[in-house]
Amino acid sequence: MAKSENISMSVIRRLPRYYRFLSYLDNQETQRISSKKLADIMNVTASQVRQDLNCFGGFGQQGYGYSVKQLKLEIGEILGLNRQFKAIIIGAGNLGTAVAKHMHFEARGFELVGIFDKNPDLAGQILRGIEIRPDEEIESFCDSHTIDAAILCMPRNGVELVIERLYSKGIKSYWNFSHYDIASEYKDTIVENVHMSDSLMTLCYRMNQR
Amino acid sequence: MAKSENISMSVIRRLPRYYRFLSYLDNQETQRISSKKLADIMNVTASQVRQDLNCFGGFGQQGYGYSVKQLKLEIGEILGLNRQFKAIIIGAGNLGTAVAKHMHFEARGFELVGIFDKNPDLAGQILRGIEIRPDEEIESFCDSHTIDAAILCMPRNGVELVIERLYSKGIKSYWNFSHYDIASEYKDTIVENVHMSDSLMTLCYRMNQR
Repeated sequence: MAKSENISMSVIRRLPRYYRFLSYLDNQETQRISSKKLADIMNVTASQVRQDLNCFGGFGQQGYGYSVKQLKLEIGEILGLNRQFKAIIIGAGNLGTAVAKHMHFEARGFELVGIFDKNPDLAGQILRGIEIRPDEEIESFCDSHTIDAAILCMPRNGVELVIERLYSKGIKSYWNFSHYDIASEYKDTIVENVHMSDSLMTLCYRMNQR
Repeated sequence: MAKSENISMSVIRRLPRYYRFLSYLDNQETQRISSKKLADIMNVTASQVRQDLNCFGGFGQQGYGYSVKQLKLEIGEILGLNRQFKAIIIGAGNLGTAVAKHMHFEARGFELVGIFDKNPDLAGQILRGIEIRPDEEIESFCDSHTIDAAILCMPRNGVELVIERLYSKGIKSYWNFSHYDIASEYKDTIVENVHMSDSLMTLCYRMNQR
């Protein structure tokens, strides 16, 4: 599978969904699936499915459908999930703890290698087998490890300064749970934001409209 | 402000973002803002901002820009954030705990009134001032309270059965952190999904492409 360039971001954003549904089907030991069936469970059209997968060279065989395992593998490869990007979590409060314990990093292309918090009481505690370190050690840790990404699980206040420190250590990829707008300050960063409150407000809107 | 019908979902999905940025500006005591400036900080075009806000009747005054406080209020009203939809959390593990403690429900149109977990060891513990109840009490709790929405913080296994129980008690709105596809099974539900792993996989893809 060749690395694909110029694929639109909206197709890219659907790939994890394909991967998720295919993983589920694979766990259910489903062997093959038609674009029609895959479209049904994903709530898109079959032509959308075929079009999306064609962007990457197309995997289906007319009349035979897709091999679930094969398609899952190929999409995983496109996503780069076989990578082990080294990541650190900043902020070991409720959210950081949930992210550390809850996420299956290894299956998502990452390896969690460090956790930091500015609260000295947390230092030394073990989370997912990793010792929580004091915030001041971020720089020395980055010097002795090659860190690819930082996961920001801290409130908006303080993020600005932390980003400055992380960026100066060469970290340019962020999974951002804070509301600080990293990408507008640091143009050469890759930032994925998780704005949980936006999702909750959207739910409120839709319930209010009903 | 009239309730707006037929607004496209993509406009709706931008409203929480406007609200978030306006809240930030309001906290900074910014009084007025031009569509150009608002567009800049939101990383969209000024014409997009004007077009979006026009969907709801338009609030700006040519040459004067928008009153931050007023615009924030009006968008909050459109979103229905003054509502207090009663919500319960199902699952008080790491994720449920983080959601319970982390989210500012009252400012997002919700009131958290109950937390349930199937682990009997958690029953009786207090989270955000709310007692965690055993899973078996969901039905009786729903009978004695009017519950508008459920927040699902449990793994995919088991969700199916819980939804069946919640739905039978008339709960048709869900904030869903599990990977179970509620909307495809229950067509008359309102579901907002938070798929954190999709976001992490997208980050991996983008890092891998760099």
